[in-house]
Amino acid sequence: MGLYPKAIERLINELAKLPGIGDKTAQRLAFHLIDAPQTDITGLSEALLDMKDKVRLCPRCFSITDGDLCDVCKDPKRDKSVICVVENTRDIFAIERTHEYNGLYHVLHGAISPIEGIGPQDIKARELILRLGEDDVKEVIMATNPTPEGEATAMYLGQLITPMGITVTRLAKGIPIGADVEYTDEITLIKAFEGRKPIK
Amino acid sequence: MGLYPKAIERLINELAKLPGIGDKTAQRLAFHLIDAPQTDITGLSEALLDMKDKVRLCPRCFSITDGDLCDVCKDPKRDKSVICVVENTRDIFAIERTHEYNGLYHVLHGAISPIEGIGPQDIKARELILRLGEDDVKEVIMATNPTPEGEATAMYLGQLITPMGITVTRLAKGIPIGADVEYTDEITLIKAFEGRKPIK
Repeated sequence: MGLYPKAIERLINELAKLPGIGDKTAQRLAFHLIDAPQTDITGLSEALLDMKDKVRLCPRCFSITDGDLCDVCKDPKRDKSVICVVENTRDIFAIERTHEYNGLYHVLHGAISPIEGIGPQDIKARELILRLGEDDVKEVIMATNPTPEGEATAMYLGQLITPMGITVTRLAKGIPIGADVEYTDEITLIKAFEGRKPIK
Repeated sequence: MGLYPKAIERLINELAKLPGIGDKTAQRLAFHLIDAPQTDITGLSEALLDMKDKVRLCPRCFSITDGDLCDVCKDPKRDKSVICVVENTRDIFAIERTHEYNGLYHVLHGAISPIEGIGPQDIKARELILRLGEDDVKEVIMATNPTPEGEATAMYLGQLITPMGITVTRLAKGIPIGADVEYTDEITLIKAFEGRKPIK
């Protein structure tokens, strides 16, 4: 006793595979879904299958798309002389929301991590270099995360790309807007001091 | 720009309908699912449809079941002279996990709430009274929540059932195990004082 009916156990197990969804949350979601209208269930079920069916990687920048090229790559108004290199696709959507960047992207789908055994061959590094050889790129902005892995990846790629006569830049590090100096970690504070700028 | 491909937008919208899943979490889940193996996607999708197809309410106690009667109602070892009345099915599984209660249940699927316009006719109250008339029940334990709605429901049902010669009891209120007296709200403290017992 105390066990749920099998069909519910199965749904809870499937839901608990999702990131950030523990057993308790999976149970709560499953019980919500039991009471949810039939259209919600079929809607979610179909959306899952439809997404898996349609979404693929853009063959140029490796962002996600449900068409041929992704929306950024096929937009004639984007500046093709700048490529912003990110670790994953979500980073693109975060940057797009700023409405400030008008260049192209390149998604590495990971970062170099010797500890986890992830080398340059495991990310879309070769694809980036090939792309730079073909297109007329003037600047590559390294927007990998400010983590040891992201830094290592930015350094590695920078050393490959700079000799190609292309400017390689790195996103600024510092105290995030709205944060408290008091509660900012030491490494961020050091970076904020290093990157300090004159007040105009 | 800045919008996700349509198939992803659709999945995010469906996920965001779930309780406790905001836009940000729905996005995170969707992006996880993009990278998830095909078997995980079809597994979740099928589990959803299968659950909706198979899970129904027990015709006796209105708990959930994927068979005819629910596991508790069809268990010959359960004490049929006691019925524990709960607001929803999840309460049953919480009580079952204690392995202490051996009677039957009755799920109201809600609680009386004049503010929200939920009256006795909107919950499984009539079904409970009918059941008590048929079976040989000696005690009804009101395990509705210690909220105004749960209290009102317990009071209302108690007034109907007591004249039937059946004992009606209510779960004890007090400070939960592991909690701090210092941080316990006043009403709970008052209830804890009212319900105080001699130390044996």
